[in-house]
Amino acid sequence: MKFTLAVIIKGNKDFSEVGKEEIENAIKAENLEKKFNAKIDINVNVDKDIKLQILSEYRAHILFAKIKKILAEYIGKKYHIGIKEIFVNRYEILFEADKQPLKPISVPFAEVKFEKNLCNVLIKDVNENFLTENYADRIINLINEKIARQYYEGKKEYWKLLWTSEKRDIKFNKDPSEEMKKRRWIFQVSKGKWFYFPQAAVMLNAMKKIAIENFVIPMGFREVIESNIKPLEIWLKTGHIYGMPNEIYYVANPKTRDETAWEHFKDIVKITKSIPKDELKELVEINYGITYAQCPMIYYALNNKTIALSELPLKFFEKTVNSARYESGGTHGIERVDEFHRIECVYIGTPEMLNELKEKMIERYKFIFNEILELEWRMADVVPFYMQHAGETETEKEDNVFWKGTIDFEAYLPYRGTREESEWLEFQNLSIVGSKYTSAFNIKTQKGDLWSGCTGIGLERWVVAFLAQHGFNYDDWPEKFKKYVKKEDIEKEIKFL
Amino acid sequence: MKFTLAVIIKGNKDFSEVGKEEIENAIKAENLEKKFNAKIDINVNVDKDIKLQILSEYRAHILFAKIKKILAEYIGKKYHIGIKEIFVNRYEILFEADKQPLKPISVPFAEVKFEKNLCNVLIKDVNENFLTENYADRIINLINEKIARQYYEGKKEYWKLLWTSEKRDIKFNKDPSEEMKKRRWIFQVSKGKWFYFPQAAVMLNAMKKIAIENFVIPMGFREVIESNIKPLEIWLKTGHIYGMPNEIYYVANPKTRDETAWEHFKDIVKITKSIPKDELKELVEINYGITYAQCPMIYYALNNKTIALSELPLKFFEKTVNSARYESGGTHGIERVDEFHRIECVYIGTPEMLNELKEKMIERYKFIFNEILELEWRMADVVPFYMQHAGETETEKEDNVFWKGTIDFEAYLPYRGTREESEWLEFQNLSIVGSKYTSAFNIKTQKGDLWSGCTGIGLERWVVAFLAQHGFNYDDWPEKFKKYVKKEDIEKEIKFL
Repeated sequence: MKFTLAVIIKGNKDFSEVGKEEIENAIKAENLEKKFNAKIDINVNVDKDIKLQILSEYRAHILFAKIKKILAEYIGKKYHIGIKEIFVNRYEILFEADKQPLKPISVPFAEVKFEKNLCNVLIKDVNENFLTENYADRIINLINEKIARQYYEGKKEYWKLLWTSEKRDIKFNKDPSEEMKKRRWIFQVSKGKWFYFPQAAVMLNAMKKIAIENFVIPMGFREVIESNIKPLEIWLKTGHIYGMPNEIYYVANPKTRDETAWEHFKDIVKITKSIPKDELKELVEINYGITYAQCPMIYYALNNKTIALSELPLKFFEKTVNSARYESGGTHGIERVDEFHRIECVYIGTPEMLNELKEKMIERYKFIFNEILELEWRMADVVPFYMQHAGETETEKEDNVFWKGTIDFEAYLPYRGTREESEWLEFQNLSIVGSKYTSAFNIKTQKGDLWSGCTGIGLERWVVAFLAQHGFNYDDWPEKFKKYVKKEDIEKEIKFL
Repeated sequence: MKFTLAVIIKGNKDFSEVGKEEIENAIKAENLEKKFNAKIDINVNVDKDIKLQILSEYRAHILFAKIKKILAEYIGKKYHIGIKEIFVNRYEILFEADKQPLKPISVPFAEVKFEKNLCNVLIKDVNENFLTENYADRIINLINEKIARQYYEGKKEYWKLLWTSEKRDIKFNKDPSEEMKKRRWIFQVSKGKWFYFPQAAVMLNAMKKIAIENFVIPMGFREVIESNIKPLEIWLKTGHIYGMPNEIYYVANPKTRDETAWEHFKDIVKITKSIPKDELKELVEINYGITYAQCPMIYYALNNKTIALSELPLKFFEKTVNSARYESGGTHGIERVDEFHRIECVYIGTPEMLNELKEKMIERYKFIFNEILELEWRMADVVPFYMQHAGETETEKEDNVFWKGTIDFEAYLPYRGTREESEWLEFQNLSIVGSKYTSAFNIKTQKGDLWSGCTGIGLERWVVAFLAQHGFNYDDWPEKFKKYVKKEDIEKEIKFL
């Protein structure tokens, strides 16, 4: 790697009294070449300002921080001049990328040129924080990431069948959402968002009860209740804000509650009976987003905590906040929506503990899907959700002692076509994410690795899977399921004229 | 009232061929003075455009619509000229306001001057829709409303004691939120928003269960589940968007999900590890708000419906969506928050039915607060919430056969001071809103008036009222309450180091 950095250093007085050699000697005395085991050339020009040029095989922005410190001390002590401002004229980085890009690559702040996999990054006219905040390293990573994505694009997603249930008799072959709409169980509020009339509410609640009584409680999860309004900073740690910012429903709060600031807006609404969106935009600021998944805030609540070993595996669940995801055009009924209900269970423990827990959880799920819901379903090993959420694409399956990854639970939907050719519905998943989130939120235990994971139970999807296979005739439903739903609650309609 | 309106009418050809008198005669032939029982002067000047002036005692913007129609027909038929554009040069309105204002008043689109309560409104250079969309009438209403508010400001809010419970022994005098924070039952996520660890979750759930088993179910409410993301249009109908836009948490969705549109934003986040808010603002659009109260969306789901008489009173409840309100600085623990959990019960029926229901509901509540929670509490008749939410201030108590209004349920909080001098905590309310919302959403029944109302159960506030009076010692708690909470669930702490 080769780095060429040119900066201008402005003092609170001018540097005319200071000699070029004097400064170069002061820097040389620190012996940076040896310390960083790299070839470093430093050129200084002194006028009113100091013009510094670094040529090195080591990251010049790191060297610069060292040099600045030397300079500041030397000049401060001898000439009583303080450093006022630093301006980066030009920063050129030459490095070998992981692979040769397949098409041009662009990144902010820099011009990027390639010769095979040799990459030339040219940055001009930026502020000091470009150096001190380590932007250069992140630009290099970003370039490699963009190349990796070019290679990944178009590849089939990783998917490996792990287990499949017995086949079931097909009782029904209609789209359950369409059927629910016809029966006025559900009403569409806006894109991908629904209002559930009593019959549909009964179905969602039955699924919730089944999950809680047969999975959550027996597995020892304790309930926590989180805020539905996520500070964006949480997603900086988890990666959601750069992984999938285009899927987030953002939340904006009023800049002020002051009546006078809002008076004009109110008046316009009252006079025109419409909402001046441009004016509204200036009255609020975006600081939050609606829940994308429940687990990030659970980690946030444990930020910087050290959990006693005796508490492990720590098991929490959350069932109160809706998740919202801005889906592409293809929303479909209540099975592909912008807002959905999910129970999320989070577990934190040693890798051994979590792998043991995983097996027990799968057994519990099998009981529910085989014995209570009587579903035709399967499990598959897929791209881990925590990579997807952070926009990561690599799917190297690590061959560790302890398993890490995501299992999707998929149900057959007869209305979509044959078992073999139709797409099955992912109705829940289960993951062990390793130390990704415990590290991000600095959550520790007394000694050893602390891993975590989560399993998300999608209530709408349980309902869709169930109705798609069993239909709407109460008498056809599995006996154990009927214990959770009264016939009259499903059949009692509200009469509109 | 006196109206002077001057407009310029542009045609798709110029009007030079058409004579001034010819047009005046065509208009006069329609005999508007007689039809509107008002003095009307109409002056026309024809050049390339038609310059029309109306002086009248009747609302000139309504007259203008009539005249435009006459003109369009006449000119269209005879000269084959269509009207292309209409421009309002000047519109002056002189009217007697309800009262003389106490300080200057301003409204958008107009200059407003007063002489005693005689108001002169001058509008210049606006488009035709100012006339056709009826802005003038709304400006007059707005001026009267602003004057009323000036008189209202500083007046004490209407509050009348209706009933008070027996006094209870004081067992505790600390702030329950502070105590919960100390015990790590709750964790503050952001302004007025909380994360509930298992012990606090158990308390909220106990309150929910008590309310459902002892109020919601016995009173015959059926559950509906609504979206937490409210299209702003709903609040145009209920008035929230002009009543309290400064308290709403708005929701903005991505303008597009297209990866390329978001690439620069993602890159900046990855390189700088911070969120460029200005860029984000341009990538999204505000179309929604988070739930302010649950009832508006229930009405929305019944929009334009005619409910069979046999279904009345129709009783729904909603317990899944959090309400969010941007509070002023004075948030306090979990008793004054920006996000809270509430069960909202909505009832729709004849005025008689709802007044009967009200009495039964109050009896049920008395049972809960007296027998299960053993609270010291009271009921008061207050400014109806539906007026507050629409920013209305008048508190005329109508003396109808059937009661309409809001009852607040308030609990004594010993830590705030004496019973007499401290402010009690409103922990829920009950309202009958008349036909306000059924009209707004055009919900009808077979015959007769259809009223509605709602009662909101604030779970955080039930918890605060309970803990403030009974404290944190499980053994001190009322026996009937203990059936809803296991001692071990309250006492089992999570050990952090």
